[in-house]
Amino acid sequence: MTEAPLPPGSTIGVLGAGQLGRMLAMAAARMGLRCRFYDPAPAPPAAALGPCVAAAWDDRDALEAFAASVDVVTLEFENVPLPALEHLARARPTRPGPRSLAVAQDRLAEKRELRGFGLETAAFAAVDDAASLRAALAETGAPAILKTRRMGYDGKGQIRLRSEAEAGPALAALSGAPAILEGVAPFTRELSVVAARGPDGAMRAFDPAENVHEGGILRRSAVPAAIDAETARRAQAIAFRILDGLGHVGAMGVELFHMPDGRLLVNEIAPRVHNTGHWTMEACAVDQFALHLRAVCGWPPPELVRHADAVMENLLGAEAEGWAARPPEPGLALHLYGKREARPGRKMGHVTRLSPRRG
Amino acid sequence: MTEAPLPPGSTIGVLGAGQLGRMLAMAAARMGLRCRFYDPAPAPPAAALGPCVAAAWDDRDALEAFAASVDVVTLEFENVPLPALEHLARARPTRPGPRSLAVAQDRLAEKRELRGFGLETAAFAAVDDAASLRAALAETGAPAILKTRRMGYDGKGQIRLRSEAEAGPALAALSGAPAILEGVAPFTRELSVVAARGPDGAMRAFDPAENVHEGGILRRSAVPAAIDAETARRAQAIAFRILDGLGHVGAMGVELFHMPDGRLLVNEIAPRVHNTGHWTMEACAVDQFALHLRAVCGWPPPELVRHADAVMENLLGAEAEGWAARPPEPGLALHLYGKREARPGRKMGHVTRLSPRRG
Repeated sequence: MTEAPLPPGSTIGVLGAGQLGRMLAMAAARMGLRCRFYDPAPAPPAAALGPCVAAAWDDRDALEAFAASVDVVTLEFENVPLPALEHLARARPTRPGPRSLAVAQDRLAEKRELRGFGLETAAFAAVDDAASLRAALAETGAPAILKTRRMGYDGKGQIRLRSEAEAGPALAALSGAPAILEGVAPFTRELSVVAARGPDGAMRAFDPAENVHEGGILRRSAVPAAIDAETARRAQAIAFRILDGLGHVGAMGVELFHMPDGRLLVNEIAPRVHNTGHWTMEACAVDQFALHLRAVCGWPPPELVRHADAVMENLLGAEAEGWAARPPEPGLALHLYGKREARPGRKMGHVTRLSPRRG
Repeated sequence: MTEAPLPPGSTIGVLGAGQLGRMLAMAAARMGLRCRFYDPAPAPPAAALGPCVAAAWDDRDALEAFAASVDVVTLEFENVPLPALEHLARARPTRPGPRSLAVAQDRLAEKRELRGFGLETAAFAAVDDAASLRAALAETGAPAILKTRRMGYDGKGQIRLRSEAEAGPALAALSGAPAILEGVAPFTRELSVVAARGPDGAMRAFDPAENVHEGGILRRSAVPAAIDAETARRAQAIAFRILDGLGHVGAMGVELFHMPDGRLLVNEIAPRVHNTGHWTMEACAVDQFALHLRAVCGWPPPELVRHADAVMENLLGAEAEGWAARPPEPGLALHLYGKREARPGRKMGHVTRLSPRRG
């Protein structure tokens, strides 16, 4: 497929206007592109950097007007209702397309696709009721994690089961929502790869990051990860297999478990730019946001060169306070997302600490 | 002077909304700050990233409404008429203040201030008519450059005189505008320092850049410059002398001539972020735009750490075309300013090439 790249001055329609949309807007501005956002939330973080349509996801008139006002549609939020993306896709290229979104929205479909691509995951089984949960536990063993199939993020909608005795209350807590039970992988480390695929199929991946989650929320990402070059290549190859298998266009975050025996299990995918790729903003000439936009616009893929080592740490809730009065450490880049309410665990900003490249 | 820093969420009023304002808006967004712009021009580059008041510089009602809508006023354009800044300064802190602007707007006042600070410049003399031009030429020798005292930028309003015979036509070309004659310094290289001073007087400077101008317009800036550490320190000390002497708050660009005998002559100052500091966007954790905003907001000064070598090159006129279809070189960061009309010599974008830090 050969297709003219969208020229500078084009308008990118972004579904969702959170901090990822805000960072996309900064990259778009560097590249001479414009962003328009669509988000039902009032005064979302990206709205400070571009026009934002505040309409519901099922408002077809608003969706059609939005499509007519942009050159291409992308997303920064994987819980955009599928019918909204499908409706937009009738009028404009949507990158990624509905298939990526459908798979990423349903943990069960996601795991099945990943297995279908020949990739390894932790043990899993569908859970709809007490009987299927018992059967699932027999499959995964305990401990295991019961998760809603849909709409989970940052550890929400997840309950850890240490034994079958906890099954009943856990199921009750999910209020009958379709669920999946996942075995707990006794991993050595958590890795992630941010990669992207263009409309012509060309793919690029950043160096894998090594991540630490706390309470289901990303705490920090470090690059380089403490892995050898062959493991890094395997991790990137897994991301490429998924991008290609889904015909995905744009960036994707792929979370992996690095097992003691060296295997890489795919934990989950996000069909968008990813929190574990924020370190690229300071450590790479082309960051994950520019990489995504290049793919969405059909610009030729860049070589991804990292010129520094980096550790990114999220600022959650009140951790984002007080930075205006604090002398910054040398090599520290501060990012604040402009959110008004600092609820506990809410991602309010991040810092990236840079050091000369060693790894 | 101890003063509470402006908190995140504050609104920075920016006079001018060109590409420098656009890049300030990106840095402000990273820091959780908002920008509002004031620019008489239609659809200026920064207006895509924040609200922009399109009013005349002498519209006092518009200036007052603007002051009331922001927490602090800064500028990205040194030809803001002084009465506008003075009017705003009655309602809000203006950083920098009128004194910096007054000095930077008048080449003669600027040279005299610099000499008053004990700094060296090329020979110069005021020119108001044929007689004073003859006297000035006797002072500077030929060749020399006749410049309007006011409103020059990017080589505009400058005429090179190779001999006294050219004096008459040159004077006529300036149409009687007050002028200054400057001797041509036979420099080894052009350097610049971007530095900033906070409201408490704390100062910081980036590594000096080595610059090449063509036709009066910056072509490229490279860091590190081919100078020794002592010369770099002297260049930064000159910038600090000027910042402190003027009581300047915010960033400043100081252009220097490095002479064959090692002396550093000050060529000119710009009371704002500077084209020769764009390399900091990719090569430093805190770039010149964040440095400026930290000073303007009274946030503690950062240590300025450079983690890569960099060469920034301006894209002038049609040079900014075709980048969407071109595979980017590894380590190249592309910036396009979103200007519609690519007039010859107009700054349309820039590229920065990064390489591992050696110098």
